[in-house]
Amino acid sequence: MKNKEIPYKIYLDESELPKAWYNLRADMKKKPAPLLNPATHEPMTAKELEGVFCEELVQQELDCDTRFFEIPKEVRDFYKMYRPAPLVRAYCLEEKLGTPAKIYYKFEGNNTSGSHKLNSAIAQAYYAKKQGLKGVTTETGAGQWGTALSMACAYLGLDCKVYMVKCSYEQKPFRREVMRTYGASVTPSPSNETEVGRKILAEHPGTTGSLGCAISEAVEKAVTSDGYRYVLGSVLSQVLLHQSVIGLEAKTALDKYGVKPDIIIGCAGGGSNLGGLIAPFMGEKLRGEADYRFIAVEPASCPSLTRGVYAYDFCDTGMVCPLAKMYTLGCDFIPSANHAGGLRYHGMSSVLSELYDQGLMEARSVKQTEVFEAAEYFARIEGILPAPESSHAIRAAIDEAVKCRETGEEKTILFGLTGTGYFDMVAYEKFHDGKMDDYIPTDEELAVYRAKLPKIE
Amino acid sequence: MKNKEIPYKIYLDESELPKAWYNLRADMKKKPAPLLNPATHEPMTAKELEGVFCEELVQQELDCDTRFFEIPKEVRDFYKMYRPAPLVRAYCLEEKLGTPAKIYYKFEGNNTSGSHKLNSAIAQAYYAKKQGLKGVTTETGAGQWGTALSMACAYLGLDCKVYMVKCSYEQKPFRREVMRTYGASVTPSPSNETEVGRKILAEHPGTTGSLGCAISEAVEKAVTSDGYRYVLGSVLSQVLLHQSVIGLEAKTALDKYGVKPDIIIGCAGGGSNLGGLIAPFMGEKLRGEADYRFIAVEPASCPSLTRGVYAYDFCDTGMVCPLAKMYTLGCDFIPSANHAGGLRYHGMSSVLSELYDQGLMEARSVKQTEVFEAAEYFARIEGILPAPESSHAIRAAIDEAVKCRETGEEKTILFGLTGTGYFDMVAYEKFHDGKMDDYIPTDEELAVYRAKLPKIE
Repeated sequence: MKNKEIPYKIYLDESELPKAWYNLRADMKKKPAPLLNPATHEPMTAKELEGVFCEELVQQELDCDTRFFEIPKEVRDFYKMYRPAPLVRAYCLEEKLGTPAKIYYKFEGNNTSGSHKLNSAIAQAYYAKKQGLKGVTTETGAGQWGTALSMACAYLGLDCKVYMVKCSYEQKPFRREVMRTYGASVTPSPSNETEVGRKILAEHPGTTGSLGCAISEAVEKAVTSDGYRYVLGSVLSQVLLHQSVIGLEAKTALDKYGVKPDIIIGCAGGGSNLGGLIAPFMGEKLRGEADYRFIAVEPASCPSLTRGVYAYDFCDTGMVCPLAKMYTLGCDFIPSANHAGGLRYHGMSSVLSELYDQGLMEARSVKQTEVFEAAEYFARIEGILPAPESSHAIRAAIDEAVKCRETGEEKTILFGLTGTGYFDMVAYEKFHDGKMDDYIPTDEELAVYRAKLPKIE
Repeated sequence: MKNKEIPYKIYLDESELPKAWYNLRADMKKKPAPLLNPATHEPMTAKELEGVFCEELVQQELDCDTRFFEIPKEVRDFYKMYRPAPLVRAYCLEEKLGTPAKIYYKFEGNNTSGSHKLNSAIAQAYYAKKQGLKGVTTETGAGQWGTALSMACAYLGLDCKVYMVKCSYEQKPFRREVMRTYGASVTPSPSNETEVGRKILAEHPGTTGSLGCAISEAVEKAVTSDGYRYVLGSVLSQVLLHQSVIGLEAKTALDKYGVKPDIIIGCAGGGSNLGGLIAPFMGEKLRGEADYRFIAVEPASCPSLTRGVYAYDFCDTGMVCPLAKMYTLGCDFIPSANHAGGLRYHGMSSVLSELYDQGLMEARSVKQTEVFEAAEYFARIEGILPAPESSHAIRAAIDEAVKCRETGEEKTILFGLTGTGYFDMVAYEKFHDGKMDDYIPTDEELAVYRAKLPKIE
C-alpha cells in the first residue's frame, strides 16, 4: 500500500549539508518594509544598527537582494555535530489516522537545545566571535533559544548573558540549569540590572515579565557594555536566513525521492522555524516554478497573524528597538499566564507578515488543549515527545490528514517538528490533570493594545 | 591531520539495520552460570520461569547456544523510528584534548526515553503482546527504563505498570509525567500494593526504596495478576541479547570505514548497555579473530565488579526472584543517597560477570564528581548533555585519550554514550553548587552485606 521504498527517516549525507543560506527576500517582488528608527521614523542605517548587532549580521539583516549567503566553514563544522536533521516519514501516524495522506516532518529536536534554535545561535555567535567581541546578550522565554545560544557560546568561548522571562525562570529551573552547564549567566527579567528593567518593575510591581521586556533589557545591556552585542532568536530577517537550512535540507531530501509536498505547515511565534522551513518552497512559488499551500499555525492565545493588524510597531516593551512593520497585537500584549510554552511574541517576522499580507500564505490559530491532545497522540504513535510549540503544527497536520481521509485525497503534507518537550512536563502535567484552559483574548482586550500602536505616517 | 573523510556522524541506512540479535553466550566456551531456583538451588526450568517471564523471552534467557535470534519485523519497524543510531566521531573532543587518539561514540540518546533502554523494551513488550497478555510490570530507578517501556507499551496497546524507586519518584516528577504521557501507571516503591512492599515498609519505615525492592514488588504484581508478566531492563541475558543491536550497528559502521577500535568502554550498572555494545567485538575475541581491550566503568559508590564477589545472590531485595551467579555487593546493598543517576544495582549481568572473571574484560570505578566534570566538559565541546550514567564512560574515554596524548599512541577508542541528561538537572545543579560528594562505601560496610550472601554449595 504505502511506498515502503521511502525510509522512515531520510538522513542526508554530511556532504549534502547546504553550503549557503537562502535569502527568501531576494525573490520577493514586494520586499518586507524596512526597520525604522523610532525617533526619526527613517529607515535604520547599517551604522545605526551596528551599535546593537554584529556588523556582518547587520549586512544580512538589510540585504534584500543577495540570494545566497555562504555558510562559514566554522558554522558548517558545528552544524555537523547535529545536522543534517532527519526528515521523517510518519508511517505510523498515517496508519493510525487511516488517511491516504502522506505525512512528513522535519525533526529539529535531536540536539541538546531541543529545537531548531541552534541553527541561528551558532551563526550569530560565530559573527560575534569573528568581530572580536567578548560576548553577547539575549532574552529567552520558553528557554530553547537561551539554551541554544549558551551552547554556541560555550563552543566558541564567548560570554553569554541571558535575560529569562521571570515566570519561565521560576517554572523552568532545569532549563536554567542547562544554560548554566554551558556556562551562561541567566537573570530573571525584569531585573534591577538595567534601567528599563527598573522602570518596568516600578510601574508593574510583581510582574512576571514578558518577552518584549526581556528584549529591552538585553538590548540595553549590550549597548551599555563594552565588547557586547545583542542577538535575537526569531523575528529578524537574519534569523530566517539562517533557519533556511531547515527548508533546504527538507527540500533536498524530498527531491531525492521525487516527493513534492502539497501543504507545508509550521508553528509560528516570531516566525523563525516557519520562515526557515518554507523558504526554498516559497522561493519556487514566488518565481512561478511550483505551487504549494503554506499554513502558519499560531496559538489562539497569542494570535498575531489571525487577529493582529499589519502595522509598524515596537519589537520590545521598552521601545528601545527599531520599529518593524509586522502583524502585531501591540508591543504591550502579553498572552495569558495559562498559555504554556513559547509562541508568545506579540508580533511576527516582517518577511512572513509581508507574504501573509500578499495572500501567499494562510494562517490559523489553535486552542491550547487541542494542541496538547495532538501532542500526546503523536507521542504515543511516533515515539517523540514534542514541544508544545511544535505541537501546533502537529495539530494542523493531523487536521489536514483527517480531511484527506474524508475526501480520499492523497495529499502530501510536510510539517516542521521544531523540538522536544522534555522541559515542558509541567505543562503536560497540567494537561493530564485537566487544569489547562483555553483562554482567548476578547476583541475588547485586543483593541486596547491596538490603540497604543505608534502612528507612522 | 585528522582523516576528515570519516564524517562527524555515521548513519547507517535503514537497510543496514541488524536483522538478528547476536547471542554472545554462543561463543563463550565457559557459559555463564545458570539461574537457580531459590528453594531447591536447582537450575530454573523454562516452566518455572514462564510464571514470571513471557515464553519466548524465557527461551532467549535459557539459550546459550543459538548464535543469532531473528529480530521480529514488528520490532524492526519500531526500531526504524529511532534507529540506526549514529556513530559519532568526536573530532571536537579530540582537538580540545590535543590527543592523537581517535574517539568514537555510539549515541543511543536520540529517542524520547533518552537512552538505549528502548531497544529491549520494545522487544519484551512485543513478545508479551504476541503471547496475548494484557500488560507487563516492571521497576525503574533513574526512570529511563520505565519511560522506554511506557513508550513500547503505548505503541503496542499494552498496559504498563511501573514501580518507581520512591526517592526517584519524588526527585524526578518529570520522568513520572513522561511515563504518564505514554499511558503508564507509576507507583512509588515500596508501596502498600504488594505483600513484599508492605513487609519492607514495616521493617524499614520511611525508606526511600531501592531497585532491588521495586523489582520484588513488580514481580509479585506480575505473578499475582491475571494476564501479566514481569519485564526487566538490565542484568538478564535476554536484555543483553536485545542490546546487541548497539554493538552490531557500531561494528557495521566502523567496518564500513575500515576502523578497528583498540579500546571499547561502557558504563556498567546491570550491564545492559555494556553487554550490548561489546557483544560482536567480544565474539571476535572469543573466537580468536581479533583482540580488543574492554573496560567496564562503574560508580565508586556501587562497585559490584571492582569490589564485589563472584557468587550466587538474589536479584532482588524481597528474594522472590531466581538466584543468579554474578559479581555482587549483596542484595541488600543500596548506594548512598548522594549517588546521582542510575548504575545503582547491587549485582552485574551473569554474562559480563563470567567474562570479567575469565579476565576477558577490565573494570574500573570512578568517583561521582569526576564523572560530572567529564559530563560538563563533554557537553560544552560535543554539544550533547550526557546522562550521569553515560558520563562514567566519558570519564574513562577522556582518561584513556589523555594517556595517548602522553604516550603519543594513536589509539582508537569507542565508547557507549547511552543517553541524555535532560531529566538529571537536579544532579547537575548539585554539582554546580558544590553540593555533590564522593561517598565511597568502606570495606567494613561491604563486609556486612557480603556476610549475608546465600550459601550455595
